[in-house]
Amino acid sequence: MNDVKQYMQQLGAQAREASRTLRRVSTAQKNAALQAIADEIARKRETLQAENARDLEAGRANGLDVALLDRLELSDKVIDTMIDGLKQIAQLPDLVGEITDMRMRPSGIQVGKMRVPLGVVGIIYESRPNVTVDAAALCLKSGNAAILRGGSEAIHSNRALAECIRTGVEQAGLPSATVQVVETTDRAAVGELITMPEYVDVIIPRGGKGLIERISRDARVPVIKHLDGICHVYIDRDADVDKAIKVAFNAKTQRYGVCNAMETLLVDDDIAATVLPPLAKLYAEKGVELRGCERTRAIIDAKPATEEDWASEYLGPILSIRVVDDVDAAMDHIAQYSSGHTESIITENFTTARRFLAEVDSSSVMVNASTRFADGFEYGLGAEIGISTDKFHARGPVGLEGLTSQKWIVLGDGTIRE
Amino acid sequence: MNDVKQYMQQLGAQAREASRTLRRVSTAQKNAALQAIADEIARKRETLQAENARDLEAGRANGLDVALLDRLELSDKVIDTMIDGLKQIAQLPDLVGEITDMRMRPSGIQVGKMRVPLGVVGIIYESRPNVTVDAAALCLKSGNAAILRGGSEAIHSNRALAECIRTGVEQAGLPSATVQVVETTDRAAVGELITMPEYVDVIIPRGGKGLIERISRDARVPVIKHLDGICHVYIDRDADVDKAIKVAFNAKTQRYGVCNAMETLLVDDDIAATVLPPLAKLYAEKGVELRGCERTRAIIDAKPATEEDWASEYLGPILSIRVVDDVDAAMDHIAQYSSGHTESIITENFTTARRFLAEVDSSSVMVNASTRFADGFEYGLGAEIGISTDKFHARGPVGLEGLTSQKWIVLGDGTIRE
Repeated sequence: MNDVKQYMQQLGAQAREASRTLRRVSTAQKNAALQAIADEIARKRETLQAENARDLEAGRANGLDVALLDRLELSDKVIDTMIDGLKQIAQLPDLVGEITDMRMRPSGIQVGKMRVPLGVVGIIYESRPNVTVDAAALCLKSGNAAILRGGSEAIHSNRALAECIRTGVEQAGLPSATVQVVETTDRAAVGELITMPEYVDVIIPRGGKGLIERISRDARVPVIKHLDGICHVYIDRDADVDKAIKVAFNAKTQRYGVCNAMETLLVDDDIAATVLPPLAKLYAEKGVELRGCERTRAIIDAKPATEEDWASEYLGPILSIRVVDDVDAAMDHIAQYSSGHTESIITENFTTARRFLAEVDSSSVMVNASTRFADGFEYGLGAEIGISTDKFHARGPVGLEGLTSQKWIVLGDGTIRE
Repeated sequence: MNDVKQYMQQLGAQAREASRTLRRVSTAQKNAALQAIADEIARKRETLQAENARDLEAGRANGLDVALLDRLELSDKVIDTMIDGLKQIAQLPDLVGEITDMRMRPSGIQVGKMRVPLGVVGIIYESRPNVTVDAAALCLKSGNAAILRGGSEAIHSNRALAECIRTGVEQAGLPSATVQVVETTDRAAVGELITMPEYVDVIIPRGGKGLIERISRDARVPVIKHLDGICHVYIDRDADVDKAIKVAFNAKTQRYGVCNAMETLLVDDDIAATVLPPLAKLYAEKGVELRGCERTRAIIDAKPATEEDWASEYLGPILSIRVVDDVDAAMDHIAQYSSGHTESIITENFTTARRFLAEVDSSSVMVNASTRFADGFEYGLGAEIGISTDKFHARGPVGLEGLTSQKWIVLGDGTIRE
């Protein structure tokens, strides 16, 4: 335990030191590092796959399930995607140093804001080694030092990737501690990482809800967290029926196991008999199980929905449906059950749309669009380190901007306060 | 204890409910409420002063010190300032609902951001009843419901102010729970307030360092906190001597007991012999005690500075002075000892100024200006609920913007993800 503490403190101190250098490196130098990491990963493809094979073998021996083994594998395709991702992040604009809103004040000072890195970012994730590279790239581009703690099942893969990252970073002349991978599988390392406010400015956990809740509870630094995605589509009485059907079908079925899939469909009583039967037919063809309220079940075949259904993130081919009196009732339902991720209204009514946009308190609020769009790439962020369901700092898809903050800058000419 | 829990849960639930209504009230309605509160305070001046007299009497009986009694008093001047403050906040632009960056995406959606209230803000402060009104006004204008917990020494004053606020809020047709004052002096109320994430979105503690550290440690919701203000002025070798003397003198002596006063002066070795003697003379005239490093003491009279001095917020007429080799050494000192509040460089050198602005990691970084400008009013925020020394969300002076966040909004035309 003491050794782990000492080890993590050392990583932390090195990261803090590196973060000071990172505040002054040029955009060209950061991009060169990203390119060098990409080149090194391409060059070490076989080594990476050999190390990955050790993890896969151990995983099979330990009875990891197929989905987990799948996420663990560094196939050629996964490696190609990593390399592409690094190159894409190199091409994104550098937000660090951006100066905005410089205004003259009556006192004679000029005041505005400068966008700056957060400092040191700790990322805790499960056994997907590609996260190691994505997270490293986003932190590096945004001028942050990173400490990465991946799942122990991926330890050999992560060590090998860490070696590629270190080589690339050093080739570009950046401090080797710019990105550090925690090379112990001791669980105490996580406990240390999240309780070193002197060295770590923010923690981003990526993984299951249990992991994120545990980290949020115990952390002594801010956490950018993504919990449930219980997303709603509300079909308003003034919806265009074709658009309603198209969006409600897409939001549920385009992909099931994702946080931005719709889990509950709300339908205005006035339009329910029109839209539910054709929707039910489409869902049936896809094999989606429907669970409805009483009013829903008076119109279409569905199992009875329970209180628990409204609060469930199915992440699968199940949909709960509730018929409501009006947009207020829909927003009441959302206020009670939504996880604050993404909600969409389908309506042609300007005023209803405007109310829904203003009053629904979720990280993404949509009109006539599928909830499946709630994603950093779809929003044009270029990359995404996670989706925040918090209200503080960054909401929704978090890209480079979410990894920075703004400080005040003040320019004067020997100006003093009278 | 159970009663307090139940009471606080009730306040929380009412605040959450009010915050939903506040998301849709008009700017005019919020401004009308602010004006009505101002009118009510003017009308109830005598009642307020009578209730305040009870607090003052109890305070004197309990041996409160003079400074505390002074802050507790609702003099005519304090009441006038409250009324002016309410009117000023009514005149500030409403940031809520501001839509920015709406961009078309290749998929057909249009994506941008909308500025929205945080929701429910909990404010914990000591015995200054004027904070009750300032905080209420800022929360109301930014569309947040507020739960205010003032010091028990001001309980009668706060109850009377709460009554004025409730009257004003109700006159304007807003929910009476828009602003709630905790009307128990039981300390357990604070413990409840900071651990109700379902009802409270953010806590802002205003008061001594002990209070803030305790709250930050125990809170289960984000805290906008202001700890120390250990501010530095660095006189660079390329400083204009007159500006250097003017700013270094103002930053220390314009007011002592404030967080943005300079506590440590750093001076480049090359210019130390030029600027320190005239500065020492000015400080001596003001009765400022100087504590210097060895190199400082070779130039001017000063007590020896200890390691503890570099880490001290004196909040009084004491200044520590260190002579350093160059701007890098100055930034090293700042990185080690600064509390991240405000630092200023005095220099005519463009490149040195640019480095200092980019590399110093404090909430305000200045060139040729007095640290005393780090203040919401001086920055043009119109009002200030505190100064954040965090890097997350809001840094530095926090005005209306810091009480809001941005959510994503997405507009489509039945747009689905392919």
